[in-house]
Amino acid sequence: MQAGKPILYSYFRSSCSWRVRIALALKGIDYETIPVNLIKDQGQQLAIIEFLEETRPTPRLLPKDPKKRAQVRMISDTIASGIQPLQNLSVLKQVGQENQLAWAQKVIHTGFNALEQILRNTAGKYCVGDEVSMADLCLVPQVANAERFKVDLTPYPTISRINKTLLALEAFQVSHPCRQPDTPPELRA
Amino acid sequence: MQAGKPILYSYFRSSCSWRVRIALALKGIDYETIPVNLIKDQGQQLAIIEFLEETRPTPRLLPKDPKKRAQVRMISDTIASGIQPLQNLSVLKQVGQENQLAWAQKVIHTGFNALEQILRNTAGKYCVGDEVSMADLCLVPQVANAERFKVDLTPYPTISRINKTLLALEAFQVSHPCRQPDTPPELRA
Repeated sequence: MQAGKPILYSYFRSSCSWRVRIALALKGIDYETIPVNLIKDQGQQLAIIEFLEETRPTPRLLPKDPKKRAQVRMISDTIASGIQPLQNLSVLKQVGQENQLAWAQKVIHTGFNALEQILRNTAGKYCVGDEVSMADLCLVPQVANAERFKVDLTPYPTISRINKTLLALEAFQVSHPCRQPDTPPELRA
Repeated sequence: MQAGKPILYSYFRSSCSWRVRIALALKGIDYETIPVNLIKDQGQQLAIIEFLEETRPTPRLLPKDPKKRAQVRMISDTIASGIQPLQNLSVLKQVGQENQLAWAQKVIHTGFNALEQILRNTAGKYCVGDEVSMADLCLVPQVANAERFKVDLTPYPTISRINKTLLALEAFQVSHPCRQPDTPPELRA
């Protein structure tokens, strides 16, 4: 490992790790992955992204305009504080085996209803206008979670369209859970 | 209402509203309060604080140093994504009346254990060093939630000490849930 190369403690399936992997790929930052099976705190990944943005500003993940930056953060926070924490593994364990799927579907539907409305006002090609932003880094991993929990995405055409557009980009592909060092063979693609 | 005066849609008891009220008080921004009884999305309040920071930079709520900024955001996200969403009203409703207190206490204890460790490394007088930051705006309302849920705070001496120091500041007092336009008379102080 070369000196100064950043280390990402990552879990292939974690939507929070994936957000950071996309940011690293977009900014062209080479890093070592150390796989960990336990994600201790979900929130800290947005702090990493903001840190990357401040120390490696190109390409920018936050728009220059303060109002658009607020829109990006509002969308990111809606996902990172409003949806993801309510359907993560530790909560689902507490909810109990037989209620997990219904619980996860409900919190994702509630969140996606709000998100779809927001995106109708902010989206261009991506979540906010036509530039990839932190909001997009949060969207794609959350849609993947929704698919794992078999959420019907037909009520969310804007979410679905943006997700599809983003998944065509290289940074979202190399960072995908199916292509990580700790991805089990049966889940590789 | 004078033109251009910002409006805060606020609920006296919401820890998320309180975070923003502290930021407004610290920055000396005059605003109208429109009380709402339903907090639709918990996360968006950090987006508001970041917007205030960018458009009204004085006094700063994020340190200048990128590493310290990351610490502030890590602490803020630990609370805003890792603790608060798991004990908010809509989740507690789903958990059911008889399990609410135990659930809330468990998620707060789990979060405060992590937070106490982080603060031992970052705190000075406040959460990160000796300047009030966004992290402090998140801490005080979360400690108030812990007290409402009768969480024993003796295992968290750093959290308790910082909380007490912050509550002595004017901005934290004028923004307190017991002094809002929609505070019911029996909860006023």
